[in-house]
Amino acid sequence: LNDLERLLAIEEIKMLKARYFRCVDTKQWGDFEALCHADVLLDISADVPGGVITGTTKIVEMMKSSLSDVITVHHGHCPEIELTSDTTAAGIWAMEDVLLFPEGASSHIKSLHGYGHYIETYELVANRWRFRTIKLTRLRVDIERTTIR
Amino acid sequence: LNDLERLLAIEEIKMLKARYFRCVDTKQWGDFEALCHADVLLDISADVPGGVITGTTKIVEMMKSSLSDVITVHHGHCPEIELTSDTTAAGIWAMEDVLLFPEGASSHIKSLHGYGHYIETYELVANRWRFRTIKLTRLRVDIERTTIR
Amino acid sequence: LNDLERLLAIEEIKMLKARYFRCVDTKQWGDFEALCHADVLLDISADVPGGVITGTTKIVEMMKSSLSDVITVHHGHCPEIELTSDTTAAGIWAMEDVLLFPEGASSHIKSLHGYGHYIETYELVANRWRFRTIKLTRLRVDIERTTIR
Repeated sequence: LNDLERLLAIEEIKMLKARYFRCVDTKQWGDFEALCHADVLLDISADVPGGVITGTTKIVEMMKSSLSDVITVHHGHCPEIELTSDTTAAGIWAMEDVLLFPEGASSHIKSLHGYGHYIETYELVANRWRFRTIKLTRLRVDIERTTIR
Repeated sequence: LNDLERLLAIEEIKMLKARYFRCVDTKQWGDFEALCHADVLLDISADVPGGVITGTTKIVEMMKSSLSDVITVHHGHCPEIELTSDTTAAGIWAMEDVLLFPEGASSHIKSLHGYGHYIETYELVANRWRFRTIKLTRLRVDIERTTIR
Repeated sequence: LNDLERLLAIEEIKMLKARYFRCVDTKQWGDFEALCHADVLLDISADVPGGVITGTTKIVEMMKSSLSDVITVHHGHCPEIELTSDTTAAGIWAMEDVLLFPEGASSHIKSLHGYGHYIETYELVANRWRFRTIKLTRLRVDIERTTIR
């Protein structure tokens, strides 16, 4: 890729991540699905023990069941996107998330406020950039619980 | 527009929004005015019932009278900017705002902490990108009041 | 510089700032050092009276001694980057930071939550953009103390 093509790819990957966050926060699961490589791997084991999920279908199912009743805010900052080949790229995003759980949630969590980084890879499939791997690392998470467990 | 011109326009629109936030938060109303199309439409009806205001003069008046004594922080994240013609564009921004009202404010509000998206359009006028329409949507707003109303 | 070179420089400067924040928040002081011009000037006098420090070595020493035990989150938003020559640039970044101090910190501070702007300049040295000057201005800082002082 030449310089211009590289800049175009970087902008497209930034918009991919923007759509990812917006689709999660506005619960547009169909649009979310289209952003992912079929074999996308999501690693949220920093938050959920054993939380490594593979495949778009399973990830969307997990998100739907765990987040549909939750007000979520996901913000991404200061992307560092690097092309690793003409069809693959790597990225790091600083992040902040706020989750507000409904009353009586089975998790006994009222709210979660976290900070960290997404470490990601992307792949160009059928002329569109898609998520290949997403790993969340944490600097800090504050959880407010409804009961002492 | 070719690819390079499109990237240049996207970067200019990102800087337009950056200046919008900075001018509001540092109360530089003259500079703010210059960012807007004369017929700009601002829709903050998600926050203020009936809050649709047209025209730069009216918007600046409203902002001056409602925000001059308020410490405001507006942050924009993850822009999705699309050129819709050579002289028009559309954008979505994730956002967070924090407003801290002075003691004794007539609104009886101490603070507001909100999350949402700006849905916007832009127009190139006299070789500079300007705001044409701005609509705020909300994921969540937390308001702390000074009195029970 | 032509338009493409200018866009490339802007993207590199954005990534420079991304690395700055990430290196501070993950305490990678060696990587941090490499981002700075040898004579970099850091002005945090808005937070620390007299806090103007010159030279990478002194800045890294100060950061190591004051932040190694502190959980820090630094987020940058809405960059306004302007090339001022082929090898110099100026930037403004909206910012938010959250600092969580360890128990028993000598500062008697539990946490700091701030909002403001970084006003910066950059210089191209040995083909890489580096920080030349960094000045922090504040819109608002909330400090939670462990004792009344």
